[in-house]
Amino acid sequence: MADARFFKVQGPFTVGQIAAIAKAELADPGLATRVITDVAPLEAASGEHLSFLDNKLYVDAFARTQAGACIVAAEHKDRAPAGTALLFSQYPYRSYALAAQAFYPPVKAAASRHPSAIIDPSAQLGEGCVIEAGVVIAARAVLGHGCHIGPNAVLGEAIELGEGCTVGACASLSHCVVGARVTIFPGVRIGQAGFGFAVSAEGVTKVPQLGRVVIEDDVEIGANTTIDRGAGPDTVIGRGTMIDNLVQIGHNVRIGKGCILAGQVGVSGSTRIEDYAMLGGQAGLVGHLTIGKGARIGAQAGIFRDIPAGETVAGSPGVPVRQFFREVAAVQRLAKGKGK
Amino acid sequence: MADARFFKVQGPFTVGQIAAIAKAELADPGLATRVITDVAPLEAASGEHLSFLDNKLYVDAFARTQAGACIVAAEHKDRAPAGTALLFSQYPYRSYALAAQAFYPPVKAAASRHPSAIIDPSAQLGEGCVIEAGVVIAARAVLGHGCHIGPNAVLGEAIELGEGCTVGACASLSHCVVGARVTIFPGVRIGQAGFGFAVSAEGVTKVPQLGRVVIEDDVEIGANTTIDRGAGPDTVIGRGTMIDNLVQIGHNVRIGKGCILAGQVGVSGSTRIEDYAMLGGQAGLVGHLTIGKGARIGAQAGIFRDIPAGETVAGSPGVPVRQFFREVAAVQRLAKGKGK
Amino acid sequence: MADARFFKVQGPFTVGQIAAIAKAELADPGLATRVITDVAPLEAASGEHLSFLDNKLYVDAFARTQAGACIVAAEHKDRAPAGTALLFSQYPYRSYALAAQAFYPPVKAAASRHPSAIIDPSAQLGEGCVIEAGVVIAARAVLGHGCHIGPNAVLGEAIELGEGCTVGACASLSHCVVGARVTIFPGVRIGQAGFGFAVSAEGVTKVPQLGRVVIEDDVEIGANTTIDRGAGPDTVIGRGTMIDNLVQIGHNVRIGKGCILAGQVGVSGSTRIEDYAMLGGQAGLVGHLTIGKGARIGAQAGIFRDIPAGETVAGSPGVPVRQFFREVAAVQRLAKGKGK
Repeated sequence: MADARFFKVQGPFTVGQIAAIAKAELADPGLATRVITDVAPLEAASGEHLSFLDNKLYVDAFARTQAGACIVAAEHKDRAPAGTALLFSQYPYRSYALAAQAFYPPVKAAASRHPSAIIDPSAQLGEGCVIEAGVVIAARAVLGHGCHIGPNAVLGEAIELGEGCTVGACASLSHCVVGARVTIFPGVRIGQAGFGFAVSAEGVTKVPQLGRVVIEDDVEIGANTTIDRGAGPDTVIGRGTMIDNLVQIGHNVRIGKGCILAGQVGVSGSTRIEDYAMLGGQAGLVGHLTIGKGARIGAQAGIFRDIPAGETVAGSPGVPVRQFFREVAAVQRLAKGKGK
Repeated sequence: MADARFFKVQGPFTVGQIAAIAKAELADPGLATRVITDVAPLEAASGEHLSFLDNKLYVDAFARTQAGACIVAAEHKDRAPAGTALLFSQYPYRSYALAAQAFYPPVKAAASRHPSAIIDPSAQLGEGCVIEAGVVIAARAVLGHGCHIGPNAVLGEAIELGEGCTVGACASLSHCVVGARVTIFPGVRIGQAGFGFAVSAEGVTKVPQLGRVVIEDDVEIGANTTIDRGAGPDTVIGRGTMIDNLVQIGHNVRIGKGCILAGQVGVSGSTRIEDYAMLGGQAGLVGHLTIGKGARIGAQAGIFRDIPAGETVAGSPGVPVRQFFREVAAVQRLAKGKGK
Repeated sequence: MADARFFKVQGPFTVGQIAAIAKAELADPGLATRVITDVAPLEAASGEHLSFLDNKLYVDAFARTQAGACIVAAEHKDRAPAGTALLFSQYPYRSYALAAQAFYPPVKAAASRHPSAIIDPSAQLGEGCVIEAGVVIAARAVLGHGCHIGPNAVLGEAIELGEGCTVGACASLSHCVVGARVTIFPGVRIGQAGFGFAVSAEGVTKVPQLGRVVIEDDVEIGANTTIDRGAGPDTVIGRGTMIDNLVQIGHNVRIGKGCILAGQVGVSGSTRIEDYAMLGGQAGLVGHLTIGKGARIGAQAGIFRDIPAGETVAGSPGVPVRQFFREVAAVQRLAKGKGK
């Protein structure tokens, strides 16, 4: 179903093969040999397509789908349309992801250096790197094997990228050490000086920003996101953390492993976010806080205090989510009463 | 009045000509032959300038203006300064826009391809395109007639631009199909993969992002805004929609015709915004919602539920605007009482 | 302590020299000859390092530091570790900044023009400019002495930069007049057309944007920030104002001297911010407001009315900060009562 100008499909696969790939259970083993040529959304899928149901909002679309096969939690089997082979999974979205990766594996370009790229002779590039047009790589930069640097991206002096990193078009990196398999989207800014100055009766004095940005393996950083280097300590993004578009990470921030930061989140300087925390879109954190392991910060929440591990908070200033909903309800009742 | 280094003025025009251009009514036809050489703000205008009053905040400045002519709603005529020719319009800002377009028509550069631009031989460029320095155009890209691509912009493989599109400096596009007369400002990111991954006990699994960004005719997209491509369905921006700077549009979002999204708005994945909706600055919408036709979302509002057509909402979580003001007032009264 | 790949340390300096540089008072003059080779954070410092305590959150780290010297307010002397030379300052962060500037003075590159830069013959460049790879400088641009233009940055027609300006990688400027010693970070967008159109029953009509961006001396503009040019009047950023990353400044905005705008702030069109105002992260201001001299706007505040000089406000809609805290407390009490 994907536009062939942009994506090249592999396959086909039988439903049985897909069950194995997707770590899902085929409800009717008699359908194992049915041939599936592509993935498609529930409403657009036809008999040769694989689809999936994850979000319950779309159960009605599931009930009407004409997909040849569909990954779904077993609990929804009663709503299943006749004729669709059901692939049961406890994690339907993950199972779909695995199947979609089989139909659309990552495209690996052959090693190349576009002649318009400006690469300082002292830079070290690993084998198999793809360096696109207009790229600028400064002195002493070090790139691991198989990195892909998009058009007009800029890699600053002595920066380091591990194996298999991707840097999007027009991104710029400086003062950073990046692990393996990190994906940096177009327009990302990494390593510039943080917002550091001392205000006194004598005016504003700039504070030299002497740290780095350290990005561990398997991190993803969304388009036009900005990550400032540390002022003295480093700014650190832990392994496997996923950062969406237009996020601001201030100097000295330390983010643990496996965290998720949605679009337009802002994290002020020196705040620490522990492993597996999740921040909703447009949430903002002031500086010098600690957000505990696995904490969940709601969309648009404003966090002005430390958050204990595992707590879910919402609102600005942020409070535990149950308290937040009680407060919202109490204000609504109050306003109705006064309005009479 | 505009700085001649940056803008070249046309004209002059008589007040009578301006009335016709601006679809306005000249209050005193005896002034029709007065000559106007330029436009200027109320406070800076002199006798040979055209100005306008739209926002009532500036009525005092209108009363003091020395402009030779001024576009204004008839209701303000009592505050008019002597000596200024009044041009009555029901839509003064629109009338001013039409007149200003006559004094400063869009500058059309002659077709050119800067020798430093890297254009893949398989790309197809329509007649009259302007390709500035450092541009990179990848294989199979298709540009309609009269497109203008700014310095160091990057157009990815197989992307398509309709006639008369403008792409600003350092912008990057991939996986997109763009209509005619679309204006893409500097630093915009279109078509990168959305924030798509499945979280399970097994960790994070990336979901291939197999859709496109489809942008209809006459859309405007502000500087450093990001629009992710769909995950399976497309991300769609409807005809004539105006998007300001630093806006985030997630994957699968569908925006209708004639919508207005102010600066720093965030729209999460799979949300649908119907025609003519307006979103104030920094408003945020969670995913999988429907915002009805003509709905108005206040600045900084946080939207966590569907919004009916025509409704105006404010607050986070967003509620109908009258309820919002009642709630704000009720809380203020409550706090005053408790403070005693 | 800074990574020598990225930063080159000067010195060493004695504690006595540092006291003079930092405008601090050495508590024990007998330690004036102690030699310090570098700066370091409290927890990482050893006997040859200078550290500092500014934020009281870190008093415990101060008490445990092994730094050879430490800049600190005299009030904390009782918590000082034995063996650390204390440098008393009323403004410890400023004193540290001055000392750190001595250890890490700004690096001044030798004048150069990378051969890949595209510089229009009519552009005028002052002496000592550094023009990096891939830079595009359009016709009639004027650069003062000693400007440094980063890789792949774009300077539009007739723009003007004063002496000693820095423009980061991939930034783009048009329609602007910039003073001396202005620092523009990577990915900044300055001078594009503002969000200007008239909505009427006849549809949307674009309003020509005929003003400029005027940036006074010593301004700093953070990564991926966007500043639109005026619609008729100019957009103005006053001397010494500091703007963080991902900030949006609309057309016609006038910001005074010495203001501070934290990350992701949004300022809508025609709003005026007077001298020394401070805006916290993600604060948003609607258009046509006046924010008085020295006003302080809290993080995430939403400002919908004029703010008097010197006032501190918080919340959305913003209210005086004491009222804000009373309201928050009142709602919490209310919700507890109702929850029983």
